Amino acid sequence: MYDIIVAGAGHAGCEAALAAARMGQKCLLITSDFTAIARMSCNPAIGGVAKGQITREIDALGGEMAKAIDTTGIQFRMLNRSKGPAMHSPRAQADRAEYTLYMRKVIEQEPLIDLLQDTVTDIRVSGTSCHGVMITTGRTIEGRAVILACGTFLNGLIHIGMTHYPGGRTIAEPPVHGLTENLVTRGFKAGRLKTGTPARIDKRSVDFSKVTEQPGDTDPVIFSFSTSRSTPRRQLSCYLTATTEKTHTILEQGFDRSPLFTGKVQGVGPRYCPSIEDKIFRFKDRKSHHIFLEPEGFDTNEMYVNGLSTSLPEDIQIEAMKTIPGLEHVVVMRPGYAIEYDFFFPWQIHATMETKLIDNLYFCGQINGTSGYEEAAAQGLIAGINAALKNTGQEPFVLKRHEAYIGVLIDDLITKETSEPYRMFTSAAEHRIILRQDNADRRLMHYGKKFGLIGDQQIQRLRQKEDSIHALTTLLQSERLSPEKIQHLFAQTSYKAPSGSMRVFNLLKRPSISIQGILEASPSLAEQAKAVTDDPSVLEQVEIDCKYEGYIKREQLMAEKIARLEEHHIPESFDYHAVKGLSNEGREKLLRHRPETIGQASRILGVTPADISVLMVRLGR
Amino acid sequence: MYDIIVAGAGHAGCEAALAAARMGQKCLLITSDFTAIARMSCNPAIGGVAKGQITREIDALGGEMAKAIDTTGIQFRMLNRSKGPAMHSPRAQADRAEYTLYMRKVIEQEPLIDLLQDTVTDIRVSGTSCHGVMITTGRTIEGRAVILACGTFLNGLIHIGMTHYPGGRTIAEPPVHGLTENLVTRGFKAGRLKTGTPARIDKRSVDFSKVTEQPGDTDPVIFSFSTSRSTPRRQLSCYLTATTEKTHTILEQGFDRSPLFTGKVQGVGPRYCPSIEDKIFRFKDRKSHHIFLEPEGFDTNEMYVNGLSTSLPEDIQIEAMKTIPGLEHVVVMRPGYAIEYDFFFPWQIHATMETKLIDNLYFCGQINGTSGYEEAAAQGLIAGINAALKNTGQEPFVLKRHEAYIGVLIDDLITKETSEPYRMFTSAAEHRIILRQDNADRRLMHYGKKFGLIGDQQIQRLRQKEDSIHALTTLLQSERLSPEKIQHLFAQTSYKAPSGSMRVFNLLKRPSISIQGILEASPSLAEQAKAVTDDPSVLEQVEIDCKYEGYIKREQLMAEKIARLEEHHIPESFDYHAVKGLSNEGREKLLRHRPETIGQASRILGVTPADISVLMVRLGR
Repeated sequence: MYDIIVAGAGHAGCEAALAAARMGQKCLLITSDFTAIARMSCNPAIGGVAKGQITREIDALGGEMAKAIDTTGIQFRMLNRSKGPAMHSPRAQADRAEYTLYMRKVIEQEPLIDLLQDTVTDIRVSGTSCHGVMITTGRTIEGRAVILACGTFLNGLIHIGMTHYPGGRTIAEPPVHGLTENLVTRGFKAGRLKTGTPARIDKRSVDFSKVTEQPGDTDPVIFSFSTSRSTPRRQLSCYLTATTEKTHTILEQGFDRSPLFTGKVQGVGPRYCPSIEDKIFRFKDRKSHHIFLEPEGFDTNEMYVNGLSTSLPEDIQIEAMKTIPGLEHVVVMRPGYAIEYDFFFPWQIHATMETKLIDNLYFCGQINGTSGYEEAAAQGLIAGINAALKNTGQEPFVLKRHEAYIGVLIDDLITKETSEPYRMFTSAAEHRIILRQDNADRRLMHYGKKFGLIGDQQIQRLRQKEDSIHALTTLLQSERLSPEKIQHLFAQTSYKAPSGSMRVFNLLKRPSISIQGILEASPSLAEQAKAVTDDPSVLEQVEIDCKYEGYIKREQLMAEKIARLEEHHIPESFDYHAVKGLSNEGREKLLRHRPETIGQASRILGVTPADISVLMVRLGR
Repeated sequence: MYDIIVAGAGHAGCEAALAAARMGQKCLLITSDFTAIARMSCNPAIGGVAKGQITREIDALGGEMAKAIDTTGIQFRMLNRSKGPAMHSPRAQADRAEYTLYMRKVIEQEPLIDLLQDTVTDIRVSGTSCHGVMITTGRTIEGRAVILACGTFLNGLIHIGMTHYPGGRTIAEPPVHGLTENLVTRGFKAGRLKTGTPARIDKRSVDFSKVTEQPGDTDPVIFSFSTSRSTPRRQLSCYLTATTEKTHTILEQGFDRSPLFTGKVQGVGPRYCPSIEDKIFRFKDRKSHHIFLEPEGFDTNEMYVNGLSTSLPEDIQIEAMKTIPGLEHVVVMRPGYAIEYDFFFPWQIHATMETKLIDNLYFCGQINGTSGYEEAAAQGLIAGINAALKNTGQEPFVLKRHEAYIGVLIDDLITKETSEPYRMFTSAAEHRIILRQDNADRRLMHYGKKFGLIGDQQIQRLRQKEDSIHALTTLLQSERLSPEKIQHLFAQTSYKAPSGSMRVFNLLKRPSISIQGILEASPSLAEQAKAVTDDPSVLEQVEIDCKYEGYIKREQLMAEKIARLEEHHIPESFDYHAVKGLSNEGREKLLRHRPETIGQASRILGVTPADISVLMVRLGR
């Protein structure tokens, strides 16, 4: 009898099992292939816009993804450096093979995780409670909770042109049949999605004189707050090129053999990660699209052709690529393809990832209709934590929208209508000025500590950091800069210097004035600051807190206001039929979603502000 | 247009592609999964009795397997050290994951190999000549020669108890459908074989106080003649335990759900690598069978349960294992299983591995009905060399039975009736005293050199070694040892010392007298020997050559006599129907096998010595 059984060892399943095991739960992690643990089936990269933020949140909560990419990264870049701090997003390319080896090793070293190479084909249920799984051999394995993290394996079907094959993630991996059907029989509603991946090419066939090199950052920022902030090992470059009009012409010649355009693929694809044929079809006036050639590791010739995801026939893929500068003599190592798979509409889960229909059964990752390794890992982490909490009789853990991107992600999943793979964007977070990658530790590490996923040493380090931030802020609030120094400071900017002396803290609020610049202008202040700290991340926090003080305060007030709605709980047995005054659509959606709070209810598409007022009255608020 | 297309990147396919590419042929290596290159699907070990010899032969010819295991080995042992040198057999456990990574890296670094992730479903033929393949996407790829190294993927079917699934090698790998059928349509005769593998268990669940440790050799011998003879890195131990009567009772309880005993499995299994149920059934009086627990790598908990190959139901496997000392609390990571697959009767190929039916089409590895990584790799190497030789208009390369185990292997394949997976044994080699692991370089490296697979430096080293052997032999033949020293030397043995002085060379022929002992007894001789060489492998050769001089000479004479039969070629168009006096069975077999020499003909089962005489007369010899 296991405490928790996790089906699937992708990015979701690994975080789920690790979190639960580290919280003292005896876990069984079932995967069809030990050599494919945490496989990066598409782009071998972690992070990017919004996803980088999620990765740091996973780290602050005690997850593994950030450490994995720090160890196996081959190129690190901070995206959007020229924009405000809310938009700064770390991203790294991984060595695909090493990433899998790293995660397998971590999993195998976790004392409370057993690994089993097999496939879950059904769950065991008594009454409305799940208590185990059945695997292909027909054996039943008992577990107090079951977490399904099946990725794209459920009835997976791979398309290349008009040819299709069964495939779970790649053509080399068999899909899982039967589990969807068994869950549907138990009352779950399933849908069909698709996603795609580009061809991989042999880097030896690229003419590098015709593409633009994109090196990694010279001062690379790594992901984990626990990794000591050292420079990562040797980095590899990526390369930029672009499609040409000729490329588009050739691709269009394959449209009549496109599984997307001919209706062979029924599943809906990710809008913001479209195939190249989609891009050409939807943006007819665009004569060219960016293509990034990204290495897949130190020891492999494989390069990922970012921007060229496609399920057009193989001959078209090859011919079209040859019209892209640098790829004239391209050797394709594997063609691009689309994969169709089953998912379960995520209004069927609670914010804890537990299903509403069956107790002790959790869904996480692509089974909930999401896209992306980071989105999957975040859900896995939350599912693992909540399954462990429930097994030990503790309160559930739900992150609010103003606390974390992960909170936004899960709230969106359970309240929004998903008809296409869900991908996280900064625009989805209404409080993004407070949900920054740089402060994920300050926002979330106390939770990680509470669950035993973050160690004392790490917490000690965070406390020191907070103390330093406070001390440095106090220093800058009390010290003044002389008019001469201020003049000198502004001389390097295009702004007019204020007359007279000024408090440093107020000075720092001005555009173009950085904390680094001030400290350089005033050696004595620099010395005082150095006495407080020499941690650059502290300086960064103080600067951001100061410069964006107004925005942050306003956002926090707003968040608190909205958060109060989340405290208005709606009983699970609440009888929406008995409430007069609800709109028809509102009632229908409320019945389907069964929101847990007024806050959730207010975000469901089709539930009007009037419906919310009716509910509030009815609930006696 | 490629020179050579290789289908399958297992142990056979990798050697085939590497050899051909290193001989200047532009190769395409097609595999269904880049992450499974050179996968060790069963025991993660290379070498052993007869197989160790083959591995060293592969190395002497310029293959890769020996270097791969030297780099990734975790335990090295010389088996049969107490027996004569013909029986000494190196064996090593591999780090399974690293072995694959090593071979993938080597393949990717080979300039003339392109890799493609896909699956071959048919060959392209014009007239009787193969000129390409078709892959799953429907694309045709042209190649001047095609080497099929499909392993167990052809219509692979995996059995665990009464349950079965399609599986190419593991459950996680889809089989290949269609290729067998397409080849049968072209006239090839296919059969069905089966093999099996034991469960993998979690080493953390083993009670090591109840099993016997088997450490690696303290002076480990590595495989490759090119690797500098340094001690390998850290070694891991294996552990010995055994089945009990209770184990057998439980296993027997599963016999009525055994796919072998109930007739579900049609394919014939390897006689000398039987399942545990086979062993219990066939050797009813044996109360116990040895079980070796072998680690699968440095960073994994997986252990291979050597000796417990089985396709009994999973519940029986687990219950039975718990009755084996040390496994009382065993955690199974993957169950054992049997796999059935298609092969092609190897009388359909020439000794070059080219098929008789279709020119420029080669079969190697398990597709020819063999078992074992080493047997597969050897065939791959020979196929790759011969395809390259033929493409460049050179003479074929066929090793004779007295030259190499590889010669024995291939000759057996094409002349013997294969009805079960063929595994190499020392007993199969009639000249095994000359086919030793220690002299594979002296036997075969000149071939490797001839094909450009062995570098000048390596040949230079071999020449030095031969010179040293000659010089040291001359020294020992000329020098005498004094009666006092001889007395001293024999004092440590149970033999009576000869009286008077003796030539060292003659002394060395005596049992219990080693070259090391002689040199220790005579410091002056030791100094002279040291002036010749300090290479222990030279001393070893001189000692073996001396001690076994009589046997070796006799065997060489015999081999030369027999080899003459191999020079009696039989024309391909030879009309056996027109030959009177042949036995009916003899004629039938000769027609089917179409042997290329009288030697081959003489070894075909059912061809009598009388038939050979008739043939010799008819051919005018």
